[in-house]
Amino acid sequence: MEQGDAAQGRDLSYPGGLLRLFLEPALSEGRQVTPSEAQDHYLRHVMRAKEGDAVRLFNGRDGEWRARIEAMTRRAICLRVEDRLRPQRQEPDLWLLCAPIKRTGIDFIVEKAAELGASRIKPVFTARTIVTRVNHQRLLAHAIEAAEQSERLTVPVIDPAVTLSAALQQWDPTRRLIFCDEGGGAPEIGAALRAASPQPAAILSGPEGGFTPAERELLHGKTYVLPVTLGPRILRADTAALAALALWQSICGDWYEPLR
Amino acid sequence: MEQGDAAQGRDLSYPGGLLRLFLEPALSEGRQVTPSEAQDHYLRHVMRAKEGDAVRLFNGRDGEWRARIEAMTRRAICLRVEDRLRPQRQEPDLWLLCAPIKRTGIDFIVEKAAELGASRIKPVFTARTIVTRVNHQRLLAHAIEAAEQSERLTVPVIDPAVTLSAALQQWDPTRRLIFCDEGGGAPEIGAALRAASPQPAAILSGPEGGFTPAERELLHGKTYVLPVTLGPRILRADTAALAALALWQSICGDWYEPLR
Repeated sequence: MEQGDAAQGRDLSYPGGLLRLFLEPALSEGRQVTPSEAQDHYLRHVMRAKEGDAVRLFNGRDGEWRARIEAMTRRAICLRVEDRLRPQRQEPDLWLLCAPIKRTGIDFIVEKAAELGASRIKPVFTARTIVTRVNHQRLLAHAIEAAEQSERLTVPVIDPAVTLSAALQQWDPTRRLIFCDEGGGAPEIGAALRAASPQPAAILSGPEGGFTPAERELLHGKTYVLPVTLGPRILRADTAALAALALWQSICGDWYEPLR
Repeated sequence: MEQGDAAQGRDLSYPGGLLRLFLEPALSEGRQVTPSEAQDHYLRHVMRAKEGDAVRLFNGRDGEWRARIEAMTRRAICLRVEDRLRPQRQEPDLWLLCAPIKRTGIDFIVEKAAELGASRIKPVFTARTIVTRVNHQRLLAHAIEAAEQSERLTVPVIDPAVTLSAALQQWDPTRRLIFCDEGGGAPEIGAALRAASPQPAAILSGPEGGFTPAERELLHGKTYVLPVTLGPRILRADTAALAALALWQSICGDWYEPLR
């Protein structure tokens, strides 16, 4: 722990505890780092930060660190990294492939998937996808914010949007693709996941209108695809994605691991 | 099946299939019923319905029925009930007690809880709940719309909002209260639900800022409360409610039952 300024600083807190910021640079004891423009704005104008105030930092590689505002000029904030609070920890290897949907929007799905521990999110365009553009930078900003607030030590990778057929052409068949199939005949997701061998996985959720017969046929023909159903009611695409992520984390993921 | 007009009518469809409407009156072969004002508007101006067109009807008691528009004047639409498509089926006995949250809103939680098969939704005010009013009529409209689209044959009961302490004072101790407790020390929800005996249940999710120490103590003191955790990441209140509903349906609910 540092002396001096540190003694008069506050802990910058929000409901989840000491404020957390995601930064790209390496983190180690004594290093100086600079927050991003958005974080600078947030520290100054929302948190009303002063020199000596403490925050937490993570970068997805070096664990979680306490840092203090060492200097604050009109142009920049300098944070001094102090002690490590938690060692680095990865999220389970679980991807989400989701068709962007118009109603609640893919921003919402990205935020919830980040909370539910997805390691990678890949927007896919399917035959019935209405949305034609995905703002990659905005999705990444949502993913970072959700990671900061959920106490994750990683930020999910956000892939550029691709067509479903392109995603399947490049597929590594050692990764199981869990296909939320409302077409009937598939086993219930919980039973299917408990019976499946442990391996990297991805969840595929469709657009508002679901998958076409041709897409279903294509998916059913792949050895790595595990079709599942989520009960007798029809779930909206976003609800299905979140329910499948939660089930996977409970059965195959890290919900069993001890709390922080 | 009726003759005449029926032969020239269309099936009024949306992505989920033949349009479904929830109505209060009793449904049986040959009965005439009138849609609500909102449904009348929807049929005329969104679906551009004509005499002879077919829809599906349900009322939460008599199963699902096909009906046709027998007459349509400027003032009213008259639907004639034809044949029963599905017998009545109840949702599992699962309540959701949720603190209204400001950010995504309780409308969103009600919609998702209806899709995930909650039988009753009770808004509760906790110490840290920021929202002070709940629009009961609007919640009910959201619940009906979600029930129509999710192929449910019931609409969840929407209770008037009460304080958490009032809800606990009236609690029937034979109903298990599954408490999403971020305070640490509780078992993982999947393991806890698999170990629990089958009984009516309710899920309790908190407001943005979580529960106070006094509320946690109160809850931990009740024999009917089952505290659970939802993994090592902190979930937002709405995410926690949806994840818990999905887990419960998969482990204790009706996700095992055959599809329609």
